[in-house]
Amino acid sequence: MSHQRAEPLDVDAIREAYPILDQSFDGSPLVYLDSAATTQTPDPVVDAMSDYYRETNANVHRGIHHLSQKASIAYEEAHDRVAEFVGASGGREELVFTKNTTESENLVAHAWGLRELGPGDEVVLTEMEHHASLVTWQQVAMRAGADVKYIRVDENGRLDMDHARECITDDTAMVSAVHVSNTLGTVNPVSELVDLAHEHDALALLDGAQAVPTRPVDVEEIDADFYAFSGHKMAGPTGIGALYGKRELLADLDPYLYGGGMIRSVTYDESTWGDVPWKFEAGTPPIAEGIGLAAAVDYLEEIGMDRVQAHEERLAEAAHEKLSAIDGLTIYGPEPGPERAGLVSFTLENVHAHDLASICNDHAVAIRAGDHCTQPLHDKLGIAATARASFYVYNSVDEIDPLVDAIEDAQALFG
Amino acid sequence: MSHQRAEPLDVDAIREAYPILDQSFDGSPLVYLDSAATTQTPDPVVDAMSDYYRETNANVHRGIHHLSQKASIAYEEAHDRVAEFVGASGGREELVFTKNTTESENLVAHAWGLRELGPGDEVVLTEMEHHASLVTWQQVAMRAGADVKYIRVDENGRLDMDHARECITDDTAMVSAVHVSNTLGTVNPVSELVDLAHEHDALALLDGAQAVPTRPVDVEEIDADFYAFSGHKMAGPTGIGALYGKRELLADLDPYLYGGGMIRSVTYDESTWGDVPWKFEAGTPPIAEGIGLAAAVDYLEEIGMDRVQAHEERLAEAAHEKLSAIDGLTIYGPEPGPERAGLVSFTLENVHAHDLASICNDHAVAIRAGDHCTQPLHDKLGIAATARASFYVYNSVDEIDPLVDAIEDAQALFG
Repeated sequence: MSHQRAEPLDVDAIREAYPILDQSFDGSPLVYLDSAATTQTPDPVVDAMSDYYRETNANVHRGIHHLSQKASIAYEEAHDRVAEFVGASGGREELVFTKNTTESENLVAHAWGLRELGPGDEVVLTEMEHHASLVTWQQVAMRAGADVKYIRVDENGRLDMDHARECITDDTAMVSAVHVSNTLGTVNPVSELVDLAHEHDALALLDGAQAVPTRPVDVEEIDADFYAFSGHKMAGPTGIGALYGKRELLADLDPYLYGGGMIRSVTYDESTWGDVPWKFEAGTPPIAEGIGLAAAVDYLEEIGMDRVQAHEERLAEAAHEKLSAIDGLTIYGPEPGPERAGLVSFTLENVHAHDLASICNDHAVAIRAGDHCTQPLHDKLGIAATARASFYVYNSVDEIDPLVDAIEDAQALFG
Repeated sequence: MSHQRAEPLDVDAIREAYPILDQSFDGSPLVYLDSAATTQTPDPVVDAMSDYYRETNANVHRGIHHLSQKASIAYEEAHDRVAEFVGASGGREELVFTKNTTESENLVAHAWGLRELGPGDEVVLTEMEHHASLVTWQQVAMRAGADVKYIRVDENGRLDMDHARECITDDTAMVSAVHVSNTLGTVNPVSELVDLAHEHDALALLDGAQAVPTRPVDVEEIDADFYAFSGHKMAGPTGIGALYGKRELLADLDPYLYGGGMIRSVTYDESTWGDVPWKFEAGTPPIAEGIGLAAAVDYLEEIGMDRVQAHEERLAEAAHEKLSAIDGLTIYGPEPGPERAGLVSFTLENVHAHDLASICNDHAVAIRAGDHCTQPLHDKLGIAATARASFYVYNSVDEIDPLVDAIEDAQALFG
């Protein structure tokens, strides 16, 4: 690694905000290495939500009274704050709160896809897509009579960009790609993919669920048309996701969910829609969660996303070094470096991933086993499941040792 | 009122769990009368969620490690708990967590409506529907080429059941009705509506957003096919709603949102779905919110829903008595009694509802002004907006006095 690294994190100080990490199971201290599934939530974020309920709670958009005014301003400004965090200059006019990344992608597929796609149109995905975009575009394309193509993943876990250039043609209507693979850890060349889409007058939706939490993301620099992510993977709460969309695109779309808070006028016969983002947030929105997500953004900015990224790279490097020294262990995805996020999926000869995770759990090491919602990618790799260790700001390099011990234990037991 | 009343609530004791209510604005103590928009959230519910984040937080369904096992069990059992609370004997197999009541209704309209409705089919609503069902069925019926009919509201704010019998015919595919009107306070004869629907082989969806928080609800006794409600109106958190559906109906429906956690198997070409409720909960679900909602159910059951209902009836009676003594004030909806929930919408001669709410706010009395997401009903009543005072377990009869003072103040100022 040759690029200049940001100042290391003081992990001990950071962990003070995470009481959940300060527990043991059967005498072994918890080693939480499942942050790609969900990150832990620091006290400032939990407190922001508790304080909201204890001081400000009211329904938004609608009320004249003090609490509703305060809640509305806090909720609306949360949109601006999250928009700013990912480099969207349009603030709330470009940032919709949804329930999770999955709903953000479904919003685009339903509101844009079902209107625009038809026979002859193609949606281009990658072979490493998460089910959130893979199943969604597959099903929506099927309903619209459109086709789906997949950009190949090469033997190093990278997108085959020659194949991308073959796949993306004038028939392409949408390119939907994961920014950082939740299975391979690959950081995809998303700017290049977006440019390819635009050269062919197609749009590009990026799944940033693993990217926004782990590195500085600037949606305008990438020039993404839509960009999806969620709260619970970036030190924020469950129950909230976000969709960035270019102002003119979101303004042009019709909502796909209907209800209160999203209309301009309603009669018994017809309805018209309100402004972005409210027209996409039917019903009472995730108010406390929006405020919690804004607090998570404050929290991460105080640490600095360049430092978060550097910390993850250090952990990924250390994990690679120590894990690849284990006989019979195979790591999937690219070598450590800027094109590799801080998660490591692997298999161990003669030990099923679930057994491996179970033995790790006996050591109080929390990793994940399964297909990580990339079942077709696992099929392609010829494996049913991988074990995955993933890291966040509260993990230290030392925590890789108990993981290694647990793996060696599993090997001794099953090998 | 002749029916036997449950034991009164100890409002002072109850208020100890609501620190938000213990504040003043410009020297006037807060009087929160906007619970039909959102109820306040008691400490046990806020603490349940904070404790979750500080002790148990992990992604569900998938993990083998301790935290994920604990989080999964808590989240799954929350479904059972909420199902039991509304009388659904099938537990989680009949209870889906959504993001709000609105999404619950959209789920039925999208998953069932877009599949089953076609030209010649009719959806029967009521004139007092909330936009959550009115706009949703209007738009989905439009897409499907089906028609929408509205059961008339009579001059007393009750459904015209003769008209209901005319509207619901063999052409009816779905009857979608609000259980308790959020504007008129009417408690509708939902069992009768459901029976009418079933006599004509139609299904019935009920909007219970205002009913579940305020009275004992038994979906099986009502024989509803689908029943929608949300957390934030029943002492629970934002970011979560629920949909009850009869087991065989939910099992038969395809999901309308796609992603992780809801599939049985996925290839690059096709997908199959998991079990109820998970197939309807794509992506990371509202885990902390589900746990918070279960805590709200525990909280309400400890008070007793019969007592909650009786308390609301007492408050509604007192409000009716005091408000109707004000010259020029018109109350909408039925007379107090078991067919009337604890919310009161009204207008004041020569004073716009928004000005009225604003003067109330000067007295720190929080009421709501607007069309309460029933714009067509307001059009029918020939008014742009009403003021609405609504009550919950933490309100005392004494709090109606500052409301009356504020109204009289508004009258003096504008009258």
